[in-house]
Amino acid sequence: MASDRLPSRSENFSEWYNQLVLRAELADYSPVRGCMVVRPYGWTLWENIQAALDRRFKETGHMNAAFPLFIPKSFLEREKEHVEGFSPELAVVTIGGGEELDEPLVIRPTSETIIGHMYAKWIKSYRDLPVLINLWNSVVRWEMRTKLFLRTTEFFWQEGHTAHATREEAEAETLQMLDVYADFAENEAAVPVIKGRKSQSEKFAGAQHSYSIEAMMGDTRALQAGTSHNLGENFARAFDIRYLDKSNKLQYCWTTSWGLSTRFIGAIIMVHGDEKGLVMPPRLAPFQIVIVPIFRNEEERTAVMETVERIKSQLKDHRVKLDDREGVTPGFKFNDWELRGVPIRVEVGPKDVAKGTVAIARRDQPGRKGKQIVQQEGLSKAIDDLLDEIHHSLFDRAKDFMVANTHQPKDYAAFKEVVANGWADVWWCGDAACEAQVKEETKATIRNIPLDQPGGEGVCIHCGKPATERVIFSRAY
Amino acid sequence: MASDRLPSRSENFSEWYNQLVLRAELADYSPVRGCMVVRPYGWTLWENIQAALDRRFKETGHMNAAFPLFIPKSFLEREKEHVEGFSPELAVVTIGGGEELDEPLVIRPTSETIIGHMYAKWIKSYRDLPVLINLWNSVVRWEMRTKLFLRTTEFFWQEGHTAHATREEAEAETLQMLDVYADFAENEAAVPVIKGRKSQSEKFAGAQHSYSIEAMMGDTRALQAGTSHNLGENFARAFDIRYLDKSNKLQYCWTTSWGLSTRFIGAIIMVHGDEKGLVMPPRLAPFQIVIVPIFRNEEERTAVMETVERIKSQLKDHRVKLDDREGVTPGFKFNDWELRGVPIRVEVGPKDVAKGTVAIARRDQPGRKGKQIVQQEGLSKAIDDLLDEIHHSLFDRAKDFMVANTHQPKDYAAFKEVVANGWADVWWCGDAACEAQVKEETKATIRNIPLDQPGGEGVCIHCGKPATERVIFSRAY
Repeated sequence: MASDRLPSRSENFSEWYNQLVLRAELADYSPVRGCMVVRPYGWTLWENIQAALDRRFKETGHMNAAFPLFIPKSFLEREKEHVEGFSPELAVVTIGGGEELDEPLVIRPTSETIIGHMYAKWIKSYRDLPVLINLWNSVVRWEMRTKLFLRTTEFFWQEGHTAHATREEAEAETLQMLDVYADFAENEAAVPVIKGRKSQSEKFAGAQHSYSIEAMMGDTRALQAGTSHNLGENFARAFDIRYLDKSNKLQYCWTTSWGLSTRFIGAIIMVHGDEKGLVMPPRLAPFQIVIVPIFRNEEERTAVMETVERIKSQLKDHRVKLDDREGVTPGFKFNDWELRGVPIRVEVGPKDVAKGTVAIARRDQPGRKGKQIVQQEGLSKAIDDLLDEIHHSLFDRAKDFMVANTHQPKDYAAFKEVVANGWADVWWCGDAACEAQVKEETKATIRNIPLDQPGGEGVCIHCGKPATERVIFSRAY
Repeated sequence: MASDRLPSRSENFSEWYNQLVLRAELADYSPVRGCMVVRPYGWTLWENIQAALDRRFKETGHMNAAFPLFIPKSFLEREKEHVEGFSPELAVVTIGGGEELDEPLVIRPTSETIIGHMYAKWIKSYRDLPVLINLWNSVVRWEMRTKLFLRTTEFFWQEGHTAHATREEAEAETLQMLDVYADFAENEAAVPVIKGRKSQSEKFAGAQHSYSIEAMMGDTRALQAGTSHNLGENFARAFDIRYLDKSNKLQYCWTTSWGLSTRFIGAIIMVHGDEKGLVMPPRLAPFQIVIVPIFRNEEERTAVMETVERIKSQLKDHRVKLDDREGVTPGFKFNDWELRGVPIRVEVGPKDVAKGTVAIARRDQPGRKGKQIVQQEGLSKAIDDLLDEIHHSLFDRAKDFMVANTHQPKDYAAFKEVVANGWADVWWCGDAACEAQVKEETKATIRNIPLDQPGGEGVCIHCGKPATERVIFSRAY
């Protein structure tokens, strides 16, 4: 596999991505149109993402639960915007146990409705609030044009669903989870993001307002990498989620939902990957280190493998892969693990055995620059430091790229040029019609309205009317 | 909730179970017939089960992956026994994205077929073997009579799927995973089990032969708590999973599959639970310890809570719940956590503050017997030891119960009495017709043919013909 040339990232980013996902064995196409198989290497990455997020969810008081895959079709119809948003994308079960069903069941595209139904049953009093639940599952949204990880009919994600006594608490939760996502993206995946509010036309179907984190991919397009929705009283009213407050009055709850999906794997690939293949961020990498033993004969083999085993046990707190495949050359192994993006390669040869050293190669700095000779003694600490350095180096590189490709065009002509190959950070009047026209004319959409605003006032990049908010316009995945 | 009386376990085991699952907030009925909602307390138990199993799967070289929820209907039809076994239970998607599908999609009842399709694509050479993959997901089998955790249309499980070069390796894997299940059941859940082979009529649809672990519930009925299947070459032939061996000849692979589901939660409830409610096995308990502060006034409150916080941080390596609810009495809290089965209750009152002690109550020994006063100093170690002791005590109690209710009836008349309220350990001739007649006459089925056989020969309990194997007959969930 690794011997075939990967398509060029700089010349054909899209095909580079498609081939890389397959060749690195992250995922594969399934016999069911639009669905993917996530292979062990890709799923281990997802497990590491899950662990990093789940820890943060639990630290902020959430517990996991599981809700049914099936949702009665009538449930979806209770929230008007919600059903309009999701109807065209539904997979519908009409036969169960050999018989036609009285009411068709929808495979969940998201679980707000069935959650709403159950919360209405569970929540009686202010003492029952807040309810802070998260689900790890898969959802189905029928897709016509699919791309592995980025857009598939079934995808894997988490969906958090909370209920609160007041509008303020719900908004605080919504923003807290946005912060959790941003913290995860930057400090685990080394992916810099912009936190912001979605415009009304881009918000979640049924939300009062939505927030997102947006990341810039290696081709400068944006990817929405996580969303957090303040649902207001919309679902509480649709499903009658009410509680008795302290003065014994019935009140509607305020609910939120927030999600991050296997799309994020697409972001990791497209932010960090290079011409040679994947570059895994060290804190999430399925394998942080690959050890490649090098020897020419049986005698060398014995000595090298003895050292390798000792090094492996020294590194037992890291995620280590020992590549002891026979019948393939070290060079083949180097290419293979470069393609698969393992952050650090440790080579052990006869000279290393003699000198008490190992040769280390950094994936983020291919070639001589990233190579060094390190003492076997204290290797674990040296590796720790290096993993940390790689994390920061990847983050800085991605951040520099994002900053370098984010522009403040002065007029609409310049704007059009900017969004052809980058992000535009511009004033917007707030008018959905204006937003729609920009989209039609340039394919760029408002990614979000950053929380971090400069203040002051300007004129809308499209219509020239007064504007009080700056937004990020970009083409997006 | 906790104030209503739980139905009597000894008088109405079934209703005791149903009510307990709801009241302990393990699970709830969903608006979709036959499906369940697993609530946070129940799901945390499942997460702990997952962690204990997943560690064992990874230690034995398996990695997790994810396969699509949807399976083309034609796939199921490729293995004759498989489609016959599963056809009556299928949920079928006929509409996707608003349009009727050309080929209906089945929601996976199990994934052998789609796995087979992909393995055929991935496996080329003996170098690619073995393939050792596990999936954590949910599957759907349409059920008419459902019972929470024990039998639901959608249930949660893991399904392992492996491919091997030889018959021997596949059989070794099948038995290894049976051992993993038994080890998990006994050493994590404190549930004693019998490992054995299923009879041909009870094996998995499409397997060459199946193994199971069987546990005795508190009403003496059996529950199949995990299964491991040697699929022979059946699926390899149906899906053309072949590899080039070392001499460059195409060979069929030998595959296995093995699964353990949320049914196991039913086993935990029914093996350990008592008249007061759940009794969680310490190594899997969502909360191992609940701390209940006791005070009568604000001054006492301050002193008690200070001690409580110190104790809580002492116990930070345990799963601790601090019940600091206001407006409910300590007695209410005691009942509540007894119902929910927390292994150890730690009470802290003003006297404990003064004396540097805490009062400890064991859930497995309600009343005075399980109470003791323990020094705050060294509490973490004392709790560790006690959790261990509780684990062994629960296991021993369950084992004694299983042994006491397993009989060796001398003739078929005695057999009938035995299986009305216990297990029968008897000789069986191996004839499926004989097995079917016993089932029809007594409702008892062969749970399994224990791996641990006495040897020798006897006569079949039903037909009196010569028999070389002893089997466990019992009514089952």
